[in-house]
Amino acid sequence: MIELPPLTQIPNQAELLVTHEAIHPFVHRTPILTNASIDRKAGAKLFFKCENFQRIGAFKMRGAASAALRLRPEERERGLATHSSGNHAQAVARMARELHIPAYIVMPHDAPRVKVAAVKEYGAEITYCNNTPDERQAALDAVVRQTGAAFIHPFNDFGVIAGQATCAMELIEDTDVVLDTIIAPVGGGGLLAGTALAGRYFSRRAEVVAAEPKAVDDAARSILSGRIESNAVNLTVADGLRTNLGERTFAIIHRYVSEIFLVEEQEIIDAMRLIWERMKIIVEPSCAVPLAAILKHPERFRGQSVGIILTGGNVDVDRLPFGQS
Amino acid sequence: MIELPPLTQIPNQAELLVTHEAIHPFVHRTPILTNASIDRKAGAKLFFKCENFQRIGAFKMRGAASAALRLRPEERERGLATHSSGNHAQAVARMARELHIPAYIVMPHDAPRVKVAAVKEYGAEITYCNNTPDERQAALDAVVRQTGAAFIHPFNDFGVIAGQATCAMELIEDTDVVLDTIIAPVGGGGLLAGTALAGRYFSRRAEVVAAEPKAVDDAARSILSGRIESNAVNLTVADGLRTNLGERTFAIIHRYVSEIFLVEEQEIIDAMRLIWERMKIIVEPSCAVPLAAILKHPERFRGQSVGIILTGGNVDVDRLPFGQS
Repeated sequence: MIELPPLTQIPNQAELLVTHEAIHPFVHRTPILTNASIDRKAGAKLFFKCENFQRIGAFKMRGAASAALRLRPEERERGLATHSSGNHAQAVARMARELHIPAYIVMPHDAPRVKVAAVKEYGAEITYCNNTPDERQAALDAVVRQTGAAFIHPFNDFGVIAGQATCAMELIEDTDVVLDTIIAPVGGGGLLAGTALAGRYFSRRAEVVAAEPKAVDDAARSILSGRIESNAVNLTVADGLRTNLGERTFAIIHRYVSEIFLVEEQEIIDAMRLIWERMKIIVEPSCAVPLAAILKHPERFRGQSVGIILTGGNVDVDRLPFGQS
Repeated sequence: MIELPPLTQIPNQAELLVTHEAIHPFVHRTPILTNASIDRKAGAKLFFKCENFQRIGAFKMRGAASAALRLRPEERERGLATHSSGNHAQAVARMARELHIPAYIVMPHDAPRVKVAAVKEYGAEITYCNNTPDERQAALDAVVRQTGAAFIHPFNDFGVIAGQATCAMELIEDTDVVLDTIIAPVGGGGLLAGTALAGRYFSRRAEVVAAEPKAVDDAARSILSGRIESNAVNLTVADGLRTNLGERTFAIIHRYVSEIFLVEEQEIIDAMRLIWERMKIIVEPSCAVPLAAILKHPERFRGQSVGIILTGGNVDVDRLPFGQS
């Protein structure tokens, strides 16, 4: 097992390369799919990086692996801790199981049953809390104090960001054309920050842009104002994108991401339906946000080769956003 | 374009090989996926042949291509005709478009809107009829009389059977282990008959078995009684499997298929959910029937390498069989 040094600043090219090497035993090199009928609709050549086929069903496995491998052995053996009701919880739980160490996950009482079941299946210990930022933090602090486990932040961590960067590194390496644009969705910004670094270090040409639900447009506003903005409400079908940026992700995104496209809820659902129906793969609503942006701005992407990161496929098939007619 | 001679009897090994060669420009060589977590649940090593990624989203493209290439040029240019409200309609329409000839599809008035739209998108001319066998046949006869188009039967045609056989040929060729069993669902029997021939001609060991919804167990009863049985009602979630066998498919299946496993409706839905949730791919209920059979009879399949044909992925995402809680 390759162990990694801690990262205290924005990772450089060599640090991303060694991260990719180190996490290799813990993640899949996911396929890149294309679809002629969606290409015709978009007027562009789209390369979908399928992190829905990643272990635990989402790219978060990359960041969790990268962060866990940066802990000193005596830290690591006390276990991993985090707060999350989503894919990051599963990723931390799964990585802990791979390393044969305990995992402690703080989840809200009202977390989806399927997410709780998945985390339990990986053998993690769950602590329930009320669903407010303060209570979540208090519950996490208590868990860390009692167990000595290492907190793995869902995104605001250079180790996590370096892990997420490996997704776009593979996208760039495995695509047989030179990409003009790479587009990723943005929530807390871990994936987007990593993608921006990968684009800068490993692509001759690709511009890295982002897509965000208009209902939670904090990242777009943060880029404009130059400081981290937040959302008054966070109601969007793209449940993976409700979070605000952190200072580490913001520092990278502000510097290296040129544009954030905003899309409406119905546009997200329509794009998700298009991926399901044409590509026959299951993707989360968050995945559909970049495609929605491309279909909304055909003039921006026309004729281009565009890499799209499909972030994950963990949806509750009992609660889909399509019309149940 | 390779043209094929007509088939008036059960195709032999060489005829399947040349069929595979001839249809190559019109079909995808679909991937074979594996899933460690479903393997653990099944106690077997499963190889899923993903015809949900086939053109038009189902294996039916193979049979339509094989049948169309067997028409004499002067027949072919008058166009293709069929009756179907499902994947075969789309396959015939798409193949006609590939050959730049007309397609005439007879569909019931109450066919799903999405299926009608897909057939229209391929440029076919639709004739609506009432949803009874007699009226359907009358409408088809009228279309054929008026247009001179060639009728492509959905399954009871040796050309179609030869086309469907190419799916298992690829499964056998592209799997890096020797398969112990190949399992396919059975409706009209075109796929199963083709799979049985492919298994017999191209596998050193594989036994070909089938799976069928208990609610429409006509094929299982036909094997026992030695003649084609039919269903009094055909209510099953596996809408691709409601048809009875034809005499050509029966002749092959009766001879070469050793066993047909029956599964309950809820077992089909549970297996479909398992494929969706673990593999992150969209498959039709019919696809889940073989996996349901494997999970129901673990002792039969334990420790084996089993090839499973996933027939297609054309589901209406607005009407899924999962509980909408």
